Amino acid sequence: MRIGVLGAGQLGRMLALAGAPLGISCRFLDPADSPCAAAFGEHVRAEYEDAAALARFCDGLDAATFEFENVPAGAAGAVADRVRLSPGVRSLELTQDRLVEKAFVRETGAETAPFAAVDDAAALEAAVEAVGLPAVLKTRRLGYDGKGQAVIRAAGDLEAARVMAERQPCILEAFVAFEREVSVVVVRSADGAWAAYPMTENLHAGGTLRASIAPAGDRRGVAAEATRIASSIAERLGHVGALCVELFETAGGLIVNEIAPRVHNSGHWTIDGARTSQFVNHLRAVGAMGLGPTDPAAPSVMLNLIGEAPRAGAILSIDPDARVHLYGKSARPGRKVGHVTVVDADRGSLARRVRALAGLAGVDRESALAAADLAGVS
Amino acid sequence: MRIGVLGAGQLGRMLALAGAPLGISCRFLDPADSPCAAAFGEHVRAEYEDAAALARFCDGLDAATFEFENVPAGAAGAVADRVRLSPGVRSLELTQDRLVEKAFVRETGAETAPFAAVDDAAALEAAVEAVGLPAVLKTRRLGYDGKGQAVIRAAGDLEAARVMAERQPCILEAFVAFEREVSVVVVRSADGAWAAYPMTENLHAGGTLRASIAPAGDRRGVAAEATRIASSIAERLGHVGALCVELFETAGGLIVNEIAPRVHNSGHWTIDGARTSQFVNHLRAVGAMGLGPTDPAAPSVMLNLIGEAPRAGAILSIDPDARVHLYGKSARPGRKVGHVTVVDADRGSLARRVRALAGLAGVDRESALAAADLAGVS
Repeated sequence: MRIGVLGAGQLGRMLALAGAPLGISCRFLDPADSPCAAAFGEHVRAEYEDAAALARFCDGLDAATFEFENVPAGAAGAVADRVRLSPGVRSLELTQDRLVEKAFVRETGAETAPFAAVDDAAALEAAVEAVGLPAVLKTRRLGYDGKGQAVIRAAGDLEAARVMAERQPCILEAFVAFEREVSVVVVRSADGAWAAYPMTENLHAGGTLRASIAPAGDRRGVAAEATRIASSIAERLGHVGALCVELFETAGGLIVNEIAPRVHNSGHWTIDGARTSQFVNHLRAVGAMGLGPTDPAAPSVMLNLIGEAPRAGAILSIDPDARVHLYGKSARPGRKVGHVTVVDADRGSLARRVRALAGLAGVDRESALAAADLAGVS
Repeated sequence: MRIGVLGAGQLGRMLALAGAPLGISCRFLDPADSPCAAAFGEHVRAEYEDAAALARFCDGLDAATFEFENVPAGAAGAVADRVRLSPGVRSLELTQDRLVEKAFVRETGAETAPFAAVDDAAALEAAVEAVGLPAVLKTRRLGYDGKGQAVIRAAGDLEAARVMAERQPCILEAFVAFEREVSVVVVRSADGAWAAYPMTENLHAGGTLRASIAPAGDRRGVAAEATRIASSIAERLGHVGALCVELFETAGGLIVNEIAPRVHNSGHWTIDGARTSQFVNHLRAVGAMGLGPTDPAAPSVMLNLIGEAPRAGAILSIDPDARVHLYGKSARPGRKVGHVTVVDADRGSLARRVRALAGLAGVDRESALAAADLAGVS
């Protein structure tokens, strides 16, 4: 079975590695010279909207998918005209526009932060009035990992926000006083069957995910509700494949922050810590092979390696049972170059092992120590 | 880290897939047009003894290894002159000659079947006299999966054996009245550290492995002795990497049947059923990254897919939690094209699940049913 993947970054690479044993070979479309997935599949090197390249990309595919949600909708449409694209264009379009996404979430009955459209600079003040401060102005499209955002805490921040709003349609979102960030990865197949991974707790720094703890502790008993929200979003979208819903947990309940219509960094722990990984299950959904069980094998902590890539040997000399995942990318500040997962049925041991890895190059020390504390008691 | 692999079959493919997350990229030397590992690493397509190709193959490698023991010794030597080859030429040479191998096993203090050299047809009768009947005449070199063997049960079989002995040096081995076949995969690193996987029980049909049960039941308590034998062989060879010792269990104890100086089909269950797979541990030994834990995660049964490759979806529709490994090879009678592993902490469930897969194309039904019975009670 040959599956086409729009985008050939680390998510594409992990899809290719997951698919190989299932007899799936991946073909990637990506404009980059040698993106990190290209070592494990055919690489059509072209811009996403290059019509001839899209035709070559689609030729002979059994199915197609994407590894990131900012694929130009035109390109996705052109693929969908030729081959079964999962998730479909609807999932893509919805999540490419924060305003449309937030409105959709509300329609499903789930909560979001208060928000208002800011179509131009003139609309900013009314939006601030409606939403309150502090708030964050985000571009409606093409935001990723905290880029394209302006925080407004007081009147003095309005000028920078106005400049941003002049350039493109934006959305103003009220700050949410959340206690923690959690996410649920759900996988849905074309026949409507779905399976959700356990709710995961996520620690961010500098707008980027640094550590995940799975399953998340659940003192308030919100995990079932988080799963219900995620599955209902997947259902309403007619989504096929993996989908991640990021949520804020507040004293008042859960608030949906963002939907990613794809495999997600907060699900990387599933490669080692769940019976079927999110990558395998995504491909099984896309390839109509039925879903595998999503139960956790044991409590897991995932630490992102960002900006620096230690060698595998350096990680394994600290913890011989650490599960190392390097993406084969050159290191650059802020770039995700790998992750390490620790899986351990003994929570005390899990916490100790995660603490031992906190000093590793590429690991955010504070996030790792916090993850160890959470994993130790969850 | 770039590791060169002599041979690009399914073992090379599984090495490449295991190495990718560790930041290891594999480069293969293999004369075949498009061997199944070539999709996951650079492929130098040339005969093993092509000097120019060997130089290209070695250029820029951090380490080298092989996926099969019949690599021409000259080629292995040429590689070892340029880059650290693990296992070394000694492991290769020893296991390329059944007579030398058997003599070596005896030196380590382990038992073998009675054997005698048959350098030519004239030596056959004396050998039969010394060893007794029934016996099996094997070529000293290049035997694999039951090929190059002649069974001698009575005087009438001598003529065929004589023809074989005329062609090449042989070894006559007495039949062993064994109760079962077991194996131990041991991994040893350059600093002398080693780790062994649990003893595995192996079921053959037509001279080819069909099913493995791991850990093997151990009514007689021979597992510790099997591990001692395997580790002492690895030690005495100064072996670096994975090594498999196949043994016969008899009423009188363990008898070494064969040594494979590499990752082995009877260790494929470790991908899904052990904390570190034999492929990862082999690469960690070869790449000097220290060894990972070899404990089993849960009881496992591995079923080979031979001659026919069902689609992954067909296997998963029977058992959504089956671990499918297709090698991307076209099907041919007798050809290993994949394997399926079932891992289950509940032995009753394990047995039921293996039974459900017994009718699968490519699976030897009888072996699968026998494996289910063994796994259910082990």
